[in-house]
Amino acid sequence: MSQPSDSVTAAILVIGDEILSGRTKDKNIGTIADFLTAAGIDLREVRIVPDEAAMIVEAVNVLRARYTHLFTTGGIGPTHDDITADCVAQAFGVGVDVDERARAMLLERHKPEDLNAARLRMARIPFGADLIANPVSKAPGFRIGNVHVMAGVPSIMQAMLDSIAPTLKGGTAMMSETIEAAGLPEGNYAGGLGEIAKARPAVSIGSYPAMTPEGFRNRIVVRSRDPQALAEACDAVRALLARLSA
Amino acid sequence: MSQPSDSVTAAILVIGDEILSGRTKDKNIGTIADFLTAAGIDLREVRIVPDEAAMIVEAVNVLRARYTHLFTTGGIGPTHDDITADCVAQAFGVGVDVDERARAMLLERHKPEDLNAARLRMARIPFGADLIANPVSKAPGFRIGNVHVMAGVPSIMQAMLDSIAPTLKGGTAMMSETIEAAGLPEGNYAGGLGEIAKARPAVSIGSYPAMTPEGFRNRIVVRSRDPQALAEACDAVRALLARLSA
Repeated sequence: MSQPSDSVTAAILVIGDEILSGRTKDKNIGTIADFLTAAGIDLREVRIVPDEAAMIVEAVNVLRARYTHLFTTGGIGPTHDDITADCVAQAFGVGVDVDERARAMLLERHKPEDLNAARLRMARIPFGADLIANPVSKAPGFRIGNVHVMAGVPSIMQAMLDSIAPTLKGGTAMMSETIEAAGLPEGNYAGGLGEIAKARPAVSIGSYPAMTPEGFRNRIVVRSRDPQALAEACDAVRALLARLSA
Repeated sequence: MSQPSDSVTAAILVIGDEILSGRTKDKNIGTIADFLTAAGIDLREVRIVPDEAAMIVEAVNVLRARYTHLFTTGGIGPTHDDITADCVAQAFGVGVDVDERARAMLLERHKPEDLNAARLRMARIPFGADLIANPVSKAPGFRIGNVHVMAGVPSIMQAMLDSIAPTLKGGTAMMSETIEAAGLPEGNYAGGLGEIAKARPAVSIGSYPAMTPEGFRNRIVVRSRDPQALAEACDAVRALLARLSA
């Protein structure tokens, strides 16, 4: 589907060796995708990279230039492989150091004598960034420019996303309707569906087969920001399915 | 961790609007990641892109140039938004048309009179590609150069991965050991862990907090292709934890 000129777009960058090794199965991409769709923001691309500075810096710079928002997850804890804050600072060409606001947040959870060098890594914030509150474990995320840096632990990521939500510029929400293909195999309606899609540039139409215990079950999803275009396309799809089922 | 010069690397490209909208939650990345780790192949990067030719072609060309193998999922069904075969052909600069071997596979499932233009899309294969068998629903995937093109439906993707496995060049398998941090907060051992990691370039060490019903539970994962380096690093980590718990 063509992008309207006022569309608000986003990318996700997942940072962490543990996702690429398969040891941890990502749950954040789906959560953020649902959140963005509800906010009328088009998620256009996702990347997963290891805990390596060159790859993180490159991905941050490519994705923040291409899209309205970039959301990162992972790499902001206290250990040596948590290098996201330093990499984001490098991508923006700014310094990074212990931030007094972030140190104060850590002191809500830790005694001053427990704030060792490792824990203070979690207060390292690029210069000029705003903090993202973390009601779960205090160590904050941050926003610099259009880049929102969040934790990788799903419960903390979700809490940070809730903190970010009111500050985000959203777009016109995408509306969608799902039509059951009612027993028709995808190959029967694919030709007609393609014609309907081709004639309607304001509408995005997808067909999604899923294996269920009863065999393949097909669903057609019609999406648009224009309610009238959506309704007309859905009518056309239903007429196609009725014709093929007759 | 530095990459040994003989390491075999891989990327995954997930293709599909339905993943980016959140409507479908990807399950293939974790499956392929586990498969590659077991085969001694380093998964270095994952990208998810929409059903748009320019983005698919760009990602295929970047990722196939950077890594030993590229695995794609999605976009090889019969509908108008299934454009992966055409995009991969474009990326390689080769033609694409209905392949007689693939047509024969489709005829194992469909009657000749049911092989309409839409279903024949599933037999469109770039010139010069080898087919990847699909025991589940017959429509094949394909391999061209170092790019392995698979279906998006997880059960079919898994079957195709099984078909590919014997043909893959693997590497020296990565070994890993997981050490429970036994109640220690990450911030207590992060400094010592960083020193252990820094002194051992052949070893990769990560610390992974997970929220459990009992609160945060930390695990340290030590990985290496060198069994002696792995054992020595694990000894050092255990000694560190014992010292801090004393």
